[in-house]
Amino acid sequence: MDITWVTPVAALIALLYVVYAMSYVLRKNEGSEKTKEISLAIREGAYAYLAQQYKIVGIFFAVIFVLLLYLSFGAKLLTPFVPFAFLTGGFFSGLSGFIGMAIATRANARTAWAARDGLNPGLRVAFTAGSVMGMVVVGLGLLDLSLWYYGLRWYYGSVVGLDQAETIKRITEAMITFGMGASSMALFARVGGGIYTKSADVGADIVGKVEAGIPEDDPRNPATIADNVGDNVGDVAGMGADLYESYVGSIVATMALGVVAFPESPLRAITIPMSMAALGVLASILGTFLVQTKDNKASQEVLLKALRKGIYGSSLLIAIFAAVAVYYVMGKENFGIWGSIFVGLLAGNLIGFFTEYFTSASYKPTRDLSAQSQTGAATLVIGGLSLGMLSTWISVVIVGAAVVAAYYLAGGAMSIARGLYGISIAAVGMLSTLGITLSTDAYGPVADNAGGIAEMAGDAGGLGSEVRERTDALDALGNTTAATGKGYAIGSAALTALALLAAFKDEIERVVRATNPDFSLIANVISVETLTGLFIGAMAPFLFSALTMSAVGRAANKMVEEVRRQFKEKPGILKGTDKPDYKRCVRISTEAAQLEMILPALIAIIIPVLVGTLLGVRALVGVLAGALVSGFPMAIMMANAGGAWDNAKKYIENGHFGGKHSDAHKAGVVGDTIGDPLKDTSGPSLNILIKLMSMVSIVFGSTILVLNQLFGLFKI
Amino acid sequence: MDITWVTPVAALIALLYVVYAMSYVLRKNEGSEKTKEISLAIREGAYAYLAQQYKIVGIFFAVIFVLLLYLSFGAKLLTPFVPFAFLTGGFFSGLSGFIGMAIATRANARTAWAARDGLNPGLRVAFTAGSVMGMVVVGLGLLDLSLWYYGLRWYYGSVVGLDQAETIKRITEAMITFGMGASSMALFARVGGGIYTKSADVGADIVGKVEAGIPEDDPRNPATIADNVGDNVGDVAGMGADLYESYVGSIVATMALGVVAFPESPLRAITIPMSMAALGVLASILGTFLVQTKDNKASQEVLLKALRKGIYGSSLLIAIFAAVAVYYVMGKENFGIWGSIFVGLLAGNLIGFFTEYFTSASYKPTRDLSAQSQTGAATLVIGGLSLGMLSTWISVVIVGAAVVAAYYLAGGAMSIARGLYGISIAAVGMLSTLGITLSTDAYGPVADNAGGIAEMAGDAGGLGSEVRERTDALDALGNTTAATGKGYAIGSAALTALALLAAFKDEIERVVRATNPDFSLIANVISVETLTGLFIGAMAPFLFSALTMSAVGRAANKMVEEVRRQFKEKPGILKGTDKPDYKRCVRISTEAAQLEMILPALIAIIIPVLVGTLLGVRALVGVLAGALVSGFPMAIMMANAGGAWDNAKKYIENGHFGGKHSDAHKAGVVGDTIGDPLKDTSGPSLNILIKLMSMVSIVFGSTILVLNQLFGLFKI
Repeated sequence: MDITWVTPVAALIALLYVVYAMSYVLRKNEGSEKTKEISLAIREGAYAYLAQQYKIVGIFFAVIFVLLLYLSFGAKLLTPFVPFAFLTGGFFSGLSGFIGMAIATRANARTAWAARDGLNPGLRVAFTAGSVMGMVVVGLGLLDLSLWYYGLRWYYGSVVGLDQAETIKRITEAMITFGMGASSMALFARVGGGIYTKSADVGADIVGKVEAGIPEDDPRNPATIADNVGDNVGDVAGMGADLYESYVGSIVATMALGVVAFPESPLRAITIPMSMAALGVLASILGTFLVQTKDNKASQEVLLKALRKGIYGSSLLIAIFAAVAVYYVMGKENFGIWGSIFVGLLAGNLIGFFTEYFTSASYKPTRDLSAQSQTGAATLVIGGLSLGMLSTWISVVIVGAAVVAAYYLAGGAMSIARGLYGISIAAVGMLSTLGITLSTDAYGPVADNAGGIAEMAGDAGGLGSEVRERTDALDALGNTTAATGKGYAIGSAALTALALLAAFKDEIERVVRATNPDFSLIANVISVETLTGLFIGAMAPFLFSALTMSAVGRAANKMVEEVRRQFKEKPGILKGTDKPDYKRCVRISTEAAQLEMILPALIAIIIPVLVGTLLGVRALVGVLAGALVSGFPMAIMMANAGGAWDNAKKYIENGHFGGKHSDAHKAGVVGDTIGDPLKDTSGPSLNILIKLMSMVSIVFGSTILVLNQLFGLFKI
Repeated sequence: MDITWVTPVAALIALLYVVYAMSYVLRKNEGSEKTKEISLAIREGAYAYLAQQYKIVGIFFAVIFVLLLYLSFGAKLLTPFVPFAFLTGGFFSGLSGFIGMAIATRANARTAWAARDGLNPGLRVAFTAGSVMGMVVVGLGLLDLSLWYYGLRWYYGSVVGLDQAETIKRITEAMITFGMGASSMALFARVGGGIYTKSADVGADIVGKVEAGIPEDDPRNPATIADNVGDNVGDVAGMGADLYESYVGSIVATMALGVVAFPESPLRAITIPMSMAALGVLASILGTFLVQTKDNKASQEVLLKALRKGIYGSSLLIAIFAAVAVYYVMGKENFGIWGSIFVGLLAGNLIGFFTEYFTSASYKPTRDLSAQSQTGAATLVIGGLSLGMLSTWISVVIVGAAVVAAYYLAGGAMSIARGLYGISIAAVGMLSTLGITLSTDAYGPVADNAGGIAEMAGDAGGLGSEVRERTDALDALGNTTAATGKGYAIGSAALTALALLAAFKDEIERVVRATNPDFSLIANVISVETLTGLFIGAMAPFLFSALTMSAVGRAANKMVEEVRRQFKEKPGILKGTDKPDYKRCVRISTEAAQLEMILPALIAIIIPVLVGTLLGVRALVGVLAGALVSGFPMAIMMANAGGAWDNAKKYIENGHFGGKHSDAHKAGVVGDTIGDPLKDTSGPSLNILIKLMSMVSIVFGSTILVLNQLFGLFKI
């Protein structure tokens, strides 16, 4: 029985939830004139950024679209659907980001206002706004997949007249290249958003906190609106696009691998990833309703428990749903596949837990780090780097164990193809809770913004100090979920990249076997081409991080100069008698982010094509694997070092080691500032790098094979 | 014709040079009572460290020796020579370090005193002292190789009665495991020395410069002698042991690979690496005599040119010698091997050049970095990390291109074995100039110490301000050569590790083929075991760096507490009326270094054995390759970021951006302090990690195969 229809149904349910959640948020009171005004400024800034981003994205998509058109219709190297799938993938990813941000930037003042009634009402507004992002990503992702799935099924089945098995095979061969649009959009949203948010943040901090001595989010700081906009474009739109890519990428990769692994029953093999995603939507929606407490005066711990209840509850539901689905679809003899799914779910939750362990001031590592601020900034920085590096081993062991277990449980001992399918379905399992995990993630910036608005509006704007205390508590909770979310994003990116790597192998073999039926793609580590590829690939995350990090530095400098200029030309700003020009600061970050993003983007696209052409696909496999295995620990290191510095500073601010304005606190601020671009720009951008290089390799695989025959030093 | 006799002859020539250079240094005047006293204190500290290190090393060697005895004579998994070769390798490596340090710590005061007559006399003393280290390493390395080579030749030829080809084959099979002793000693010298030197340096800086406000090398600082001892144990003994390991490892690996690549003429194949090393000794000695200028008032640029003349002159000579040797030994048809050697030489010099480019204040990157200190420590640190990461791509491209070229030039297109031999001989080519490159390296700490002695002795000790200016100039020159030397050490470690990886493959194939003649070790990147191995391997440098970095932090903290205690208990110290207790500080660093080294050491040894046992040799290949491809860029990043911060600070001190005591300078000190453990502890320790894991895998290869059959999840 064909139950792939659950996917479009789930997509519709997710989108219906989005409509419900949007109306819930919009019904709330946006507060006083003052809060409305600030919220509007942030919203306008966010839209200005998006408008600018869409311009650049438009140019990029146009160029790639034409190239794909040529490769499809001119060179006949791709199926004719790819260029259009590329556009829809980009469109739906962009639309998710737009809707998510539209609500996030409308929920910030409403959250602050709701916090007047207590922590819980504030949490409900912020979390519901976050859940719009979570659900719109999975809803539109599944909608895009469903449209193409049914379109292609109709085309191959009815128009071309293939039988079911052949139809499914063709569908998955075409769909595996469809992630490129989502990948490209993610590149712009994540990398551009990351540069934006941290250039604004670091710039605002340097002139505001350090030079002028005014607190965070002070309305006198011209960069403060840009800083708040940055939270939205980086942590809402950027994170959403990143996970949209993982979500879609892992599902299509698993479908493609499933057809190869189970040639006798391809429909069943693709039903599993599609239905897992669908069931995840239901579990996530049910989970969101668990996120509340009866107690309007609930403490932060209680709220954190509420959020965890949502995530763990959803995970449990999915595990049960998955058991039924696998048993029903694949039969008792293939029930090991459920084990692979469970392993993925478990790994996601474990990585989240250990990320929190290493970055939260509730645990020993960050507390010890905080103490190192007493001997100055240098020891704090060394300690943070060391903590970040040390934390990598647990994540690597978790992912390594998950990969081995998923491989075996799915039947890797019988057939390698089944093992690879197991790894891939583990990625889908990990991402099946995306609806709710992304909700808790996107909650963070809403709460952060609410705090900013409370600070800027002040008593005059109707938000007294007890509201600011509550928004601070909501913000602190958001920091915890942001750290956990980062670990989850990195872990799922790594598993998705593994799935894409396996899919790349199948894709190359499929193409080459047309002329050479015995071909197997074996990339031997002890061969000069693969080893050289590994070297280049392992270096790529260093290069990519260097570029994104220095981009933040340059963009932050522009911001510093602008703020200094405003302070100098209008001395009334600091006295509070003159209004700063927020828009100019927003424009500076926007333009800098888009400009600085071009070089890293080109590198991510050019390296695989260039290496594949010159050194062949065996070297290209080395590049993809090298980037994955060095990029994964590096992303973890950056995320955890940055998170730990952030919370170490907050720990000092809470009165330890001399508290605010002590020397230890000054050192803490240095650590936090260094961590900012690591954890919010370079680290997350690596998620994109490792997936995008694989996706580019898949899409341009047949092209690379042709170019390699012409120009290659090493050939197949 | 058999010309392997050139190797022992070259060993003797090198050792004769050592005797000459030692007597040259010792004939110089050690200066006033004051300088003699300080020099003696440093020397005693260095000996105290060595004595402590030898104790730990003794225990470690005893344990491994017993284990090897069992594996050789009990389990019959190794040739009976391995345990004894292990001891000799460790002994000669340790002896080199001892002699090098004995002279370096006797040359420091003599250099300072000679600098009274001008820069050039100071340079001559310091450089000659450094050349003792350079030449004793190559001399004793070749002596150890020669003793075993002739011993085994006599044993297999005369005693066992094998023919020449079979004798050579057996010799190389035995000798490939001989690097383990040198590797183990390098682990202790490099990692322990690295922790020592930076804990003393950072500890002395934090209390001295930051808290008490006294200058570097001030005699009132109780940690100042420990700091000067550290320069010797880290940069002389540590660097020497590191390169001794590369030197011996690359030669034995090339011999082993040569026998596989040229089965019809094994003697010729092993003659090339042996004679290359021998010719390198001659070229290096000739090169050392080029290091001088007629001008006693020469500027720093002139001195740098003199050093370069020595290195480039030696490289050129070796290129010529090698052409003759390859043509004569291997014939016209194999002349491509000369190409591989040349590529290695060129790559070594190029990496050295680019290291200097990225870390010297004469070039744009470090100057730009220095400017970032104006916006505070945070931007300077971000800038330095970014610079370090960016700099990795050039080195990776150089090594990648060198590997591909060396592979092809040696005939990789005909046979993979020849290609791998080409990569390996490129490593020997790069290291053939070791005699002189290590001399310029070991020159640095002597000059640094001379500066320290000049500062401590002062006018009262007969060393006026013009001497301190000269020793500062010599020291600055030493910083440049140290940075270049680090690049060279990393590059040669990477090539050596590649050679060892290829040798590991041959070794495993040899063992398995005894029972399964068709076996080939293919570690496919897209297989779950190899991929998991790659993940674990790529994470290892992160873990190793975290441990060494936090070790420095803890050890430095102990030092800070001790210095604070002394200042508190004897207030006369800071007034100059009471003498600080230097010895206690020396003891603290010594004990901390040895204690903190144990965990990283165990990890480097346990990871390969554990992975090989549980996941099999295909996973183990992944671990070795993963550690190599992520450890190489990481080591470069750390070395270059650290070097650039160091020189950015000096650039500020030379009067830029406000000069000494400005806010920019304070930021510069923070950057420099962060860079210290990166460039002098963690970064160089990675050289050891990547080589040692390969060496352990080779030595315990047959044991791992047996354990894997018993306990493995994945088996061959």
